[in-house]
Amino acid sequence: MSHTLGELAARTGCELRGDPQLQVVRVATLAAAGPGDLAFLANPRYRPQLAQTRATAVVLDARSAEGHAGAVLVSRNPYATYARIAALLHPEPLPAAGVHASASVDPSARVAATASVGAGAVIAAGAVVGERCLVGAGCVLGAGVQVGDDSRLHARVVLLAGTRLGRRVVIQPGAVLGSAGFGYAREANGWVAVPQLGGVLVGDDVEIGANTTIDRGAIDDTVIEQGAKLDNQIQVAHNVRIGAHTAIAACTGISGSTRIGARCMIGGAVGIVGHLDICDDVVITGMTMVAHSITQPGMYSGGLPAAPAPLWRRLAARFRRMERLAGRVARLEQQFGAAGAHGDDTAEEANE
Amino acid sequence: MSHTLGELAARTGCELRGDPQLQVVRVATLAAAGPGDLAFLANPRYRPQLAQTRATAVVLDARSAEGHAGAVLVSRNPYATYARIAALLHPEPLPAAGVHASASVDPSARVAATASVGAGAVIAAGAVVGERCLVGAGCVLGAGVQVGDDSRLHARVVLLAGTRLGRRVVIQPGAVLGSAGFGYAREANGWVAVPQLGGVLVGDDVEIGANTTIDRGAIDDTVIEQGAKLDNQIQVAHNVRIGAHTAIAACTGISGSTRIGARCMIGGAVGIVGHLDICDDVVITGMTMVAHSITQPGMYSGGLPAAPAPLWRRLAARFRRMERLAGRVARLEQQFGAAGAHGDDTAEEANE
Amino acid sequence: MSHTLGELAARTGCELRGDPQLQVVRVATLAAAGPGDLAFLANPRYRPQLAQTRATAVVLDARSAEGHAGAVLVSRNPYATYARIAALLHPEPLPAAGVHASASVDPSARVAATASVGAGAVIAAGAVVGERCLVGAGCVLGAGVQVGDDSRLHARVVLLAGTRLGRRVVIQPGAVLGSAGFGYAREANGWVAVPQLGGVLVGDDVEIGANTTIDRGAIDDTVIEQGAKLDNQIQVAHNVRIGAHTAIAACTGISGSTRIGARCMIGGAVGIVGHLDICDDVVITGMTMVAHSITQPGMYSGGLPAAPAPLWRRLAARFRRMERLAGRVARLEQQFGAAGAHGDDTAEEANE
Repeated sequence: MSHTLGELAARTGCELRGDPQLQVVRVATLAAAGPGDLAFLANPRYRPQLAQTRATAVVLDARSAEGHAGAVLVSRNPYATYARIAALLHPEPLPAAGVHASASVDPSARVAATASVGAGAVIAAGAVVGERCLVGAGCVLGAGVQVGDDSRLHARVVLLAGTRLGRRVVIQPGAVLGSAGFGYAREANGWVAVPQLGGVLVGDDVEIGANTTIDRGAIDDTVIEQGAKLDNQIQVAHNVRIGAHTAIAACTGISGSTRIGARCMIGGAVGIVGHLDICDDVVITGMTMVAHSITQPGMYSGGLPAAPAPLWRRLAARFRRMERLAGRVARLEQQFGAAGAHGDDTAEEANE
Repeated sequence: MSHTLGELAARTGCELRGDPQLQVVRVATLAAAGPGDLAFLANPRYRPQLAQTRATAVVLDARSAEGHAGAVLVSRNPYATYARIAALLHPEPLPAAGVHASASVDPSARVAATASVGAGAVIAAGAVVGERCLVGAGCVLGAGVQVGDDSRLHARVVLLAGTRLGRRVVIQPGAVLGSAGFGYAREANGWVAVPQLGGVLVGDDVEIGANTTIDRGAIDDTVIEQGAKLDNQIQVAHNVRIGAHTAIAACTGISGSTRIGARCMIGGAVGIVGHLDICDDVVITGMTMVAHSITQPGMYSGGLPAAPAPLWRRLAARFRRMERLAGRVARLEQQFGAAGAHGDDTAEEANE
Repeated sequence: MSHTLGELAARTGCELRGDPQLQVVRVATLAAAGPGDLAFLANPRYRPQLAQTRATAVVLDARSAEGHAGAVLVSRNPYATYARIAALLHPEPLPAAGVHASASVDPSARVAATASVGAGAVIAAGAVVGERCLVGAGCVLGAGVQVGDDSRLHARVVLLAGTRLGRRVVIQPGAVLGSAGFGYAREANGWVAVPQLGGVLVGDDVEIGANTTIDRGAIDDTVIEQGAKLDNQIQVAHNVRIGAHTAIAACTGISGSTRIGARCMIGGAVGIVGHLDICDDVVITGMTMVAHSITQPGMYSGGLPAAPAPLWRRLAARFRRMERLAGRVARLEQQFGAAGAHGDDTAEEANE
């Protein structure tokens, strides 16, 4: 779909430097772009590519625009502006409205006439699918499930009974919402399953990645608040609450009843134990174990970066003997009267 | 479904303190409960809510019951008692028996007349589905798969050929049992796939979470013994054996040919390397790496909790220089004749 | 399927020691083997079982063959030879060619007459399925997807639009290729989704495990080069490139735009951050966090093995106070004039 730079500048509120009649038809990377392409520069690492790009126009910030000869759209947030223009140039094809002949829709379900239900999809009794929704091939919607207007469930999403989605929710293939949580009471001879009776409540504009799992609550609901973005293969246990606009990267696991605040950014493969409170505006870097509640906004880490294996083996062995090393230091301090001055530091732990 | 406290006390062997004619119709949390609700108190953290609860009755232990004015059911194991009562008040709806018109069942498969087979389910040649089973929408059962009586496969479970389930097995959506394990022999020009010829044997009362994967054995079977409980997104590699009543939390991965004993409790995101033996009654906390066999029951850990990022960066850098720190201590000891007394501790590592 | 040892020796280029007319009909472990079985010995740990085995023949190397009385096939690579013989004795049953009546194939899709399309499979407009392919029950192939000859998609694989597979690609159930990557631009009031416009390009002989997810590229493609082997529950983010014949174990996550070289071996539950370059022939052990590019072939590690919980608690607390311990050592050095000789080691970090 072709657009003029003038039109794109007007639509996105950017300053245009260049011929407003120039046309762009697609997006491309700075390196690969050619005539008719629009590229963007948001990450300084790619700045050297700017001089060489053959793109018809580039979205960038004022600083990067200085001294660049080609046509540019100057934006305070080039990546967001690029996202909007890319959506204009490459609108997501909306499947035709209607229910595929091979889908199974219970007579008591209500599917909007403007919605598209794909091949082999299953919609159970009492489910409600809103206007302009996509229920992709092989999706399964349990009894009474609600899907808000303009939501898109790509292929093979499962929403079990008790799941309610807001509007404009996007879910990638293989995601499972509403599965029974991991609740068992121990007895002498094994485990008794605790009935999982809650649901999953998902706010407007939430997006959920491929093969992510979100268990329903044990009694109350598991809640994903509006605008939260979850990547692939994330595990959200029962009764978790994830705050508005919080973004979570792939492979992260959140244990039961933990509450995460708004606008948090959680890296990949993070593990968060149960019954914690993480406040708003917390950033957690990848592969961190969060074992205690976090009450102050800021960045938290817990992963040790890789080292060559021979060095790492020595470090791991030394780590395991760290108490001994501390003992040796304490003995030296005692031997030379330094102990009185500094002493062991065990008592100071609480200060950190 | 309404029950009297007298009936519930009799059914669960609890001591009732209160009017046996009182009726409860549902469960609720202490905080949210109202008239007609039954709540429970198992976790001391919620004890303060007991005085304020409006629940008609509360399940708790004798100590918590002291001095509480309301009706109580006194149990030695309140959580297990709650689980049983919740199951009475909220029986899981059993779908009607029969095979949905859109399911594909091979003529040579044997599906019990009391079983329910959902929309779009596929049951291949020679498969056997027992009495009162649920085969949910979109499930796929391969050739010769066996599903024991009273098992429930929720939507979109895949059991490939060679999988046999015991009775009362429960599997959440998206789980895959019987996939080919990761077996390749290296050659100069790449990898040769090693045929995976075993199956997956699952005992009675096993429960398996959403999107969990269990590979079939390479030659013999992968085995999950009776009563084991697996959470979501767990990976069980070929030839693993998991002992009876062992519970494993989400996102844990178990490498090939490892054997885990009975009654173990394994936290979330644990990684266990291959060809190990973990004895009975082992507890492993979350995000631990198990790189060696465990021969003594008890609790084992391996995760470092998060710290504020600036502190963590210093710690990670210091960790990487730990050999130098130890060298500095050794030099001090030598300089002041302490070495003879304590020496380096390398040799002592084996003692731990 | 029965074969003589003479035939197997000829087919695999092994030296046969024993009667070439002996027949074997199946493979078995050394411990479980009986008459008619072929076993193998590749892992020295199982060598003691060789003397007792009742196998008709054993595949092993020259060293292990010395002094063994039974029939043997002597190979320089016993595991690879075993793999080839196991494939001869246990050929994978190829489903009959044809499209199951319950499958939904768009009229514009081209499915080879020799291909098998299972029950409930969905093949969208313009998709191409090559000769002798298996598209298992419940698979979903999006618009224009290409599947090369002799590929096998086991049950319930999803390939979204933009995915192209080479020849002899094998994908286990639940895998998702072509899902939209995790791309969002932050704004004052939340996140803007960045359209994900690339595809997924998979080379010949690639194998992909159960419930693994591979996102399509943001602009260009995500690429898995020929012969790469991916285990279960691996997450591959947008724009990642994985080199030829690289093998990756289960539960590993690879962040966006990272490039991994050829012939790498990556352990389970490894986390690799985004925008990195990992060179050819790198080995990364399990549960390692890779936070920097790797430019030298070799083995890298980053996981700390488990310890008994009481010891681990002390170690974790000591780790958190490591800066203090280093300070105490520095004070001792200053106190006794050692500082001049060794000083703090902060400046030396760069050397490692």
